Amino acid sequence: MREGKEEVLLSSEGISRRGLFRNAGKLAIGATAAAAMTAGGLSFLSGAEAKGGRTEKWPWPYVKLDPETTAEIAYNDWYRLFCGAAVVNSVFSQLREKVGEPYNSFPVDAFVFLEGGISGWGTVCGSNAGANIVSNCIIGPRIAESADGMLMGSEMMQWYSEARMPVYMPKNPKVKTEIPKTVSNSPLCHISVGRWMKAANKDLMSPERKDRCARVTASVAYHLVELLNQWKDNTYATKGTIPSKTCGITGQHNCTDCHGSNVPAPPLPKKMTSEK
Amino acid sequence: MREGKEEVLLSSEGISRRGLFRNAGKLAIGATAAAAMTAGGLSFLSGAEAKGGRTEKWPWPYVKLDPETTAEIAYNDWYRLFCGAAVVNSVFSQLREKVGEPYNSFPVDAFVFLEGGISGWGTVCGSNAGANIVSNCIIGPRIAESADGMLMGSEMMQWYSEARMPVYMPKNPKVKTEIPKTVSNSPLCHISVGRWMKAANKDLMSPERKDRCARVTASVAYHLVELLNQWKDNTYATKGTIPSKTCGITGQHNCTDCHGSNVPAPPLPKKMTSEK
Repeated sequence: MREGKEEVLLSSEGISRRGLFRNAGKLAIGATAAAAMTAGGLSFLSGAEAKGGRTEKWPWPYVKLDPETTAEIAYNDWYRLFCGAAVVNSVFSQLREKVGEPYNSFPVDAFVFLEGGISGWGTVCGSNAGANIVSNCIIGPRIAESADGMLMGSEMMQWYSEARMPVYMPKNPKVKTEIPKTVSNSPLCHISVGRWMKAANKDLMSPERKDRCARVTASVAYHLVELLNQWKDNTYATKGTIPSKTCGITGQHNCTDCHGSNVPAPPLPKKMTSEK
Repeated sequence: MREGKEEVLLSSEGISRRGLFRNAGKLAIGATAAAAMTAGGLSFLSGAEAKGGRTEKWPWPYVKLDPETTAEIAYNDWYRLFCGAAVVNSVFSQLREKVGEPYNSFPVDAFVFLEGGISGWGTVCGSNAGANIVSNCIIGPRIAESADGMLMGSEMMQWYSEARMPVYMPKNPKVKTEIPKTVSNSPLCHISVGRWMKAANKDLMSPERKDRCARVTASVAYHLVELLNQWKDNTYATKGTIPSKTCGITGQHNCTDCHGSNVPAPPLPKKMTSEK
């Protein structure tokens, strides 16, 4: 199952970053005067770019962070903010101190809702959503100057799905006993948590499950900062792809994991059909 | 399948809003001086609350919006920002004009990555993620003053899963022909889009599929503003629940939709086991 996913992802054609650029420079400009925002310390925005007083100029200023420090912040923040907001805060709280705006203006706590796969629905693991928020806020969206933000987010989800989680061991874990490591084969909370719960035979409200998710959050924060530091050093070469671009439907490539042997064939564009 | 989900959701114990409050008032306070932010026009923050110069005071100022106007903005924005960012922008762009901060400072375009279920991975439909961002930014996270932001986000996902989508018909749709309506039974992009593609026999890159997603985005924006207007009028009584609180694992309650007849039993807390 895991090998199947890797095989397809590795053999599929990589998405050209250049090919993803479109609408570059088409920043949405509101009507509010630039004056209000430039007074707010957003000095990295020029007057022309800041029309509408918004933070939509990329990349956001970034200074390299220590992965271990970031992971420790994420681990401890989990117990207040849970997975998604903890990943965001582990990076943005340091950049608030080191840089200031636009990180001061980002409402991190509002993203507590990413917990439990968005309001407890078990969809995407909040730490993956948080990693995408961070990479896309800092590097920018693919409709701006670079697709690396989205591709780094996608790479984080692939890494998450294939890693033996939790990867990171906090310095002073709240749960002292050893806990199992599991491979989710999925970026979804329900599957990631469910597979771990089954392996550990621990319930959702157990201290071990909570600490497992706090450590997963720390693991994601650690690896995300490793990639961001490479990007800052101009050495980042994304391993990310946009899965839906290569298989005709939005989804990762390990179809049998949910569908078993009965994988539905999506209607394919003529181009993809003729290539088959 | 659909009836099963409704039955469980309706019969399960509702989550007390009061019961979800915790850590109320424990706003994260950074070290940056408040002066920078109060100069930025965030006058709704008092000096004490604005320590760290952040936007973490709730609720954000909201004025009632017209659902149809919002849906039209979301529909048209889809073709630039795609589902998630279009939902956010349909609300925040109007509030930038009518209110100003903190909406000016929110980097809407960064959330383009929500497309395709987050960077094309087919997880949560971006319009659901966008609805949660809006409700939690405006009303606030459950660790602040109210859980209604998260519960409204959850209600939006339940409504999305049960609706015959797309619900909203734009005034001037780009695709003039009639397109099918389907029920996703899921907040996930992969399942929602896949079921529609199968019913319509249209591929992912077809104009019809794109317009379907633009109309879904508009439908979500329309209903979200209906709920926010109720909240503004103090008449909002949430229908939302946090599914993971009532079934022992993060996930919605229509288990057989993916698991078939072989639904795994998660390890349950002693309290839930003894209740069985």
